[in-house]
Amino acid sequence: MIAINWGTSNFRAFRIGSKGTLEAEKTSSRGALSVPSGGFLDALMAEVGDWIRAGEEKVLMSGMVGARRGWKEVPYISVPATLEKVAGAVVSLQIDCLDARIVPGLIGADECGIPEVMRGEETEIFGCEGGSPSHSNLCLPGTHTKWVRMEDARIAAFTTCMTGDLYKAIREGSILRSFAGQDPIDDAAFLLGVARSRQAGALAHHLFCVRTLLLTARIAESSASSYLSGLLIGHEVKTMAREGESVHLIGDAALCSLYARALAEFDVQSSVEPAGADLRGLTRIAGRLEW
Amino acid sequence: MIAINWGTSNFRAFRIGSKGTLEAEKTSSRGALSVPSGGFLDALMAEVGDWIRAGEEKVLMSGMVGARRGWKEVPYISVPATLEKVAGAVVSLQIDCLDARIVPGLIGADECGIPEVMRGEETEIFGCEGGSPSHSNLCLPGTHTKWVRMEDARIAAFTTCMTGDLYKAIREGSILRSFAGQDPIDDAAFLLGVARSRQAGALAHHLFCVRTLLLTARIAESSASSYLSGLLIGHEVKTMAREGESVHLIGDAALCSLYARALAEFDVQSSVEPAGADLRGLTRIAGRLEW
Repeated sequence: MIAINWGTSNFRAFRIGSKGTLEAEKTSSRGALSVPSGGFLDALMAEVGDWIRAGEEKVLMSGMVGARRGWKEVPYISVPATLEKVAGAVVSLQIDCLDARIVPGLIGADECGIPEVMRGEETEIFGCEGGSPSHSNLCLPGTHTKWVRMEDARIAAFTTCMTGDLYKAIREGSILRSFAGQDPIDDAAFLLGVARSRQAGALAHHLFCVRTLLLTARIAESSASSYLSGLLIGHEVKTMAREGESVHLIGDAALCSLYARALAEFDVQSSVEPAGADLRGLTRIAGRLEW
Repeated sequence: MIAINWGTSNFRAFRIGSKGTLEAEKTSSRGALSVPSGGFLDALMAEVGDWIRAGEEKVLMSGMVGARRGWKEVPYISVPATLEKVAGAVVSLQIDCLDARIVPGLIGADECGIPEVMRGEETEIFGCEGGSPSHSNLCLPGTHTKWVRMEDARIAAFTTCMTGDLYKAIREGSILRSFAGQDPIDDAAFLLGVARSRQAGALAHHLFCVRTLLLTARIAESSASSYLSGLLIGHEVKTMAREGESVHLIGDAALCSLYARALAEFDVQSSVEPAGADLRGLTRIAGRLEW
C-alpha cells in the first residue's frame, strides 16, 4: 500500500510492502494548497505514479488533502476520539483506478466553546511509538501548533496556536520584515526571546521591542529572527503548558528542539517522539480497515 | 511658515500665515518610507514647492522624516520631556534654500528597561487643545500604538504596541488572509472580538479561532476583519489600560472610535482629542524657536 501525509505545504509518501516493511519514501513540496481544484489525481500520479503502475492500488492519505480545499472534504469527527473511531470514519474516494481513502480530521472545542479542528495530527498522535500514546499532554509544533490532552488512549481535547503562521506573517509583512532572511538559530538570542516572553506585557508590545533592541544595537540583526522565534514560542508556552506536567513533542526535530528548550525555561519537562509518527499512524489506521 | 507631519506612510503639510492662521493644507501618501535616500528635498518641493516659491522659507517637520532612513537622523531625546525640551532639541537641516528643521523623537524604556521610541507622536501630544495635556493617560492608536503616561505636562513614559502592524501582517500573510478585503467595520463583530480577547488564552490561539469560527459559519466572511480588529485591539487594551483611569485618545477619528469602544468593554472611560493635534503641536514648537 501507499501511505501519504498530504499537508498544506508538504507531501510525504511511503510505499509499504505486504509484510509491513517500508520499501520506498518520497517527500516533495507539492502541498495540498498548491494543487489546483480537480487536480489531485494528477498530482498523486505525478508524485507516486511509478508505484501505482507497479501494482500498488491501496492508498491511505491524511492531512489537508481531506479539507474543503483538498481532494475531497471529509467530515470531521468529534473528540473524544480513539484510533478505532478515526479508522471507522475513513472515507473512500470512489475512483476507478485506485482504492484511495482519506483519514478524517477531528473537531473539538476549547474551554470557551469555540471550535477547534485538526487534520493530519490525529494520525501522527496515533502513530506514537509503543501504540496508543501513554502521555497525557502532547504538543505538535508547526504552522498551527496543536496542544493535545489525551485520556485513556483517546484524544480528549486540543487547542491550536497559530504561532508558526504568525512568525511567518510578521517576518514578511511587518516592520520586523527587514531581517526576513532565514538565519541559523542563535541559541542565546532564542533564549533571550523566551525570557522576554515571561515578563509582563502584551505580545504586540514585546514584538515592537524587537525593533527597538535592533535600533539600539542591543541585539544583532542576524540574531533577531531567533529572538523573535523565542518570543513567540515563549508567549505560547507560557499560556499552554501546565506547570509540573510533562509534554511529549511530535513533529519536525529542529522545531521540537526549540519547543523543548522553551518548555525547560518554564520548568516543564518534555520528551520528543522519534521521526516517522505519520507513517506509523497511517500504518495502524490502514491495519484496521477492510481493503 | 510650513508645518509638516511627515510620517512613515503619509505626508501632511500646513501653510501658516504670519498671524498664525492656516492658509492652506495638503495631504498625500508620500510617506518617508516611499522617499529614496537623498530624495527628500525633491519630495518636499514636489509636494509644497509652490508655497516655497511663493516666499515661505521656514519649514518645521516632525515624524519619521527624522529617522535613520529619513531625511536626516535627529537624535532622540530622553523622557521625561516637556514641550520646551523638545523644542530645544530641534535640528536644522542646514540647507541653502530653506530654513528647514526637524523635531526630535523621544526615547524611553518600558518597566523592564527595554527601549521605547517615538517620532511624531510627541508633537501631537504637545498639540492637545488647551495647551499641555491635562490628561494622565494618553493613547495614540496607529500602526504602532503609543500608550503615554503624562506627569506635570511632561511625557513621563510610554509603551508601544504594534497592533496595527500585526493586523496588516496577519491579513496579508497568514491563514487569515482570505478575508483581506477592506470591509466596513461591523460593530457587532468588532465587539465579539473584544469579548473574546477578555477570555483566557494566548493571542495566537484566539487568532486561530477566527479561522474555525469561519469554517463553522459562526461568523460571516464579511465580518471576519472586524472580529479580528476587535480581538487584536482587545488584547492590547486588556494589558495596557488601567482600571478606573480614563484614557485620552489622539489620532484618526475612526480608529480612536474603535479604541474607545474597546476601552468601554473593559470599563475604561475615554475622550477623543479633536483633529489637528499635529498642526497645533508643530505651531507651538515653532513658536518656541528662534527663526
